[in-house]
Amino acid sequence: MASSSSLSLHVLLLFTILATLAALLESKPTFQLPGAFYAQSSVKKVKAPKPKIPYTAHYFPQVLDHFTFQPKSSKTFHQKYLINSHYWHKGAPIFVYTGNEGDIEWFAANTGFLLDIAPKFKALLVFIEHRFYGESMPFGKDSYKSAETLGYLNSQQALADYAVLIRSLKQNLSSESSPVVVFGGSYGGMLASWFRLKYPHIAIGALASSAPILQFDKITPWSSFYDTVSQDFKDASMNCYEAIKGSWAELDALSAQNEGLAELSKIFRTCKDLHSADSAKNWLWDAFVCTTMVNYPTEANFLMPLPAYPVQQMCKIIDGMAPESTKLRSAIAAASLFYNYSQTEKCFDIEHGADAHSFDGWNWQACTEMIMPMTSSNKSMFPPFGFNYRDFEEDCRKNFGVMPRPHWITTEFGGNRIELVLKRFGINIIFSNGMQDPWSGGGVLKSISSSIIALVTKKGAHHVDFRFETKDDPDWLINLRRQEFEIIQKWIDEYYADLRRTKNQCC
Amino acid sequence: MASSSSLSLHVLLLFTILATLAALLESKPTFQLPGAFYAQSSVKKVKAPKPKIPYTAHYFPQVLDHFTFQPKSSKTFHQKYLINSHYWHKGAPIFVYTGNEGDIEWFAANTGFLLDIAPKFKALLVFIEHRFYGESMPFGKDSYKSAETLGYLNSQQALADYAVLIRSLKQNLSSESSPVVVFGGSYGGMLASWFRLKYPHIAIGALASSAPILQFDKITPWSSFYDTVSQDFKDASMNCYEAIKGSWAELDALSAQNEGLAELSKIFRTCKDLHSADSAKNWLWDAFVCTTMVNYPTEANFLMPLPAYPVQQMCKIIDGMAPESTKLRSAIAAASLFYNYSQTEKCFDIEHGADAHSFDGWNWQACTEMIMPMTSSNKSMFPPFGFNYRDFEEDCRKNFGVMPRPHWITTEFGGNRIELVLKRFGINIIFSNGMQDPWSGGGVLKSISSSIIALVTKKGAHHVDFRFETKDDPDWLINLRRQEFEIIQKWIDEYYADLRRTKNQCC
Repeated sequence: MASSSSLSLHVLLLFTILATLAALLESKPTFQLPGAFYAQSSVKKVKAPKPKIPYTAHYFPQVLDHFTFQPKSSKTFHQKYLINSHYWHKGAPIFVYTGNEGDIEWFAANTGFLLDIAPKFKALLVFIEHRFYGESMPFGKDSYKSAETLGYLNSQQALADYAVLIRSLKQNLSSESSPVVVFGGSYGGMLASWFRLKYPHIAIGALASSAPILQFDKITPWSSFYDTVSQDFKDASMNCYEAIKGSWAELDALSAQNEGLAELSKIFRTCKDLHSADSAKNWLWDAFVCTTMVNYPTEANFLMPLPAYPVQQMCKIIDGMAPESTKLRSAIAAASLFYNYSQTEKCFDIEHGADAHSFDGWNWQACTEMIMPMTSSNKSMFPPFGFNYRDFEEDCRKNFGVMPRPHWITTEFGGNRIELVLKRFGINIIFSNGMQDPWSGGGVLKSISSSIIALVTKKGAHHVDFRFETKDDPDWLINLRRQEFEIIQKWIDEYYADLRRTKNQCC
Repeated sequence: MASSSSLSLHVLLLFTILATLAALLESKPTFQLPGAFYAQSSVKKVKAPKPKIPYTAHYFPQVLDHFTFQPKSSKTFHQKYLINSHYWHKGAPIFVYTGNEGDIEWFAANTGFLLDIAPKFKALLVFIEHRFYGESMPFGKDSYKSAETLGYLNSQQALADYAVLIRSLKQNLSSESSPVVVFGGSYGGMLASWFRLKYPHIAIGALASSAPILQFDKITPWSSFYDTVSQDFKDASMNCYEAIKGSWAELDALSAQNEGLAELSKIFRTCKDLHSADSAKNWLWDAFVCTTMVNYPTEANFLMPLPAYPVQQMCKIIDGMAPESTKLRSAIAAASLFYNYSQTEKCFDIEHGADAHSFDGWNWQACTEMIMPMTSSNKSMFPPFGFNYRDFEEDCRKNFGVMPRPHWITTEFGGNRIELVLKRFGINIIFSNGMQDPWSGGGVLKSISSSIIALVTKKGAHHVDFRFETKDDPDWLINLRRQEFEIIQKWIDEYYADLRRTKNQCC
């Protein structure tokens, strides 16, 4: 089976969800705000060839604005979607991936789970691209031009896109009674669960993997994200955690010295001399946060090629350092695993920086509705920082000409007292979360009812369940996927039983 | 108790929901399309004094566009809402009326049910005005200027308004744990049930009275509306039904004669000579349709002052006519009950016409999302007509510069196979319908589960349950209201029990 580990690094889409506050990145290249470091991400953006995936691409004429009726609202654009109908027959289930912030091919290539289970359900697989990402640009090359065009980029418009497209697709396939189950990971998982909540007449259930729907307002403690990263390292080795925690002060002290940047360039093995210590800090920071997210139990290549359990591997490197090594050198050695597991890099292009443009979409969303405040507490292995809403708002205004609506997501989709709200809903949602994942703090970690089920794995990382199965998968992962399979099977069985009863009643 | 029957005729808001196709009214003053007759409605629009109601008016700074983030989207306008806090204390329930197409005072004055039950629940009563109606004009006097401004008038924006306003209100009252129940009649009932579906985290339940949520697409037979009006008259007396059914041809024949209009002016007792036979036809048509909607079991003054069971009274008039009377004269005599029950009119101002402007809002909605096709079948007592979507679309384009989205409502809110969709939802909605009501065909008439309950009364008319109780109420109406009361009581009890359990768990 074509393993996702063979997939070259495409774009660091997963990162973008981290970039909650990334709108600030250009105006605040400090660590006062956590999203900032993604601006200068030193992870190389390799333009990889398109992944080879068993899907055909299609384009749907989608309405620009579902929620107003101005003359320009009804303009249409081409929304891309991918189809695999290899296993499907009319009337069988339709599994829809609710695309998130990036090219839909990348999500299709990294959601092997759907291809793995499709034959058993004879399911049609559909991956729908999110508006304003990939090729689905409502205003072509001008889509990111200003708030006037970007104004149409948000989660509610995206959900309505999915509703309209799915309905039309079922009609075109003459398979209107096919049950639809939606799937999504990360922001896509938020969309999948919200889709089931808002469009229960279109999807019979949702599997939302690593969906931090509670990361808004004050529902989840703001320090949760960095506390989890830190705890993962602490669990691997206390010495490892202490080394990283102490490395920042060493870095600051060194950079403050005469010839400090030259010395930093040397110990970071940069290809070109550093112009700022911040980029070195970002480079370390990225490595620890991203490795935690993809702390998968098998060798994988999601963000970068990495061994099984890379956090543990990083800590092994640190724990194996000579006693006289500095904390900073230990941290660099560990971070190098992330950037150079394949041992092909002779030096690191630390100030190369990200193609800022590829993050614009999420930055915009982070400045409008996706306000997920983050702080670094004293439990964290990162330097401490707070969250100042006024500064954040001012930066959004300056960068995008837009004012954030910080309480809108919880008004539109709920979140507070979620267990009380959804308790009596037979809503059919699985929330799966791995406790290694920094986003797990914002996830639904307890089952709410017999139909809103939280599946939690202690060792899981960011939507690990969505990866292709491999021969090395540990039992807990095999079990997790089996549970998901069985629950979805139950939803579909119930649906067909209800459908038969309804037909019998009416005819 | 101040009975609603003391309320003078204000505006015929209820009618406006009938005006589904009313955008056509200026371009097609014929009976090819049923909404047309509301354009030329000969029911007098008396500018009545503001009703005296025990509410205070407030204004909320509401966001113009919840679903885009263009620079102009965040403009705010003053949304009016009414409050009665006489019985309330902090933590007690909040009952919200989700305003429909008109001044909110009028709905408050005609929804006595809420004032009747408020003391028993110690409930806060809130009536929220729908954007683009009454005083809640996003662009002041320019609100109806063009599709550019009217574009923001639709049901989803209205629901989001309610969500934002309710959340803010609870916060300002420091009563965030108060359970909210939403209420609405007619289009307001559609909004109430959709609100519970889309915002379950804000409202714990909904009472949707006479809400034709299934009147879209092909879910309900298109002839249902006029078939029900006709059946109501048939049930009262077959002779009555036959007289009305035959009256249209007599009217046509007469108007085709020399001096036909003068003769018609005479027998219709018009104050001024008629210019067209259509207005006479409209006058009759209005009377029969409207009387059916308000065929209440007690004397009432909702649209016009009328006796108890006015359809039966109309048929008594027809059945009592001299044998030599024509069908047309019989129909006119019956219709006169609607226009002149108080016996104060010496002649009828038939071509006075409606203030077209007061209907613009609904006409716009009918041309954008509220596409509820209607036809007149051969079972109907009205002249037969069909529904041609192309003509309809063309008229909307011409009149408003907008293209209808005929499948949008069912995509956004569902409708098809509603029983299958909602079956497993513990959703807490009461759908109440009176079978006398022409809108009942588009209502939910069978309970879907133990929490989605249809209450159907054979003798009920358009949201009769929402009227103030009177000493003359029949047992079936008293029972209906008692059932509603008990179900709402159960929702609220469950909510408080859940709330206590959650608090105990967490502390």
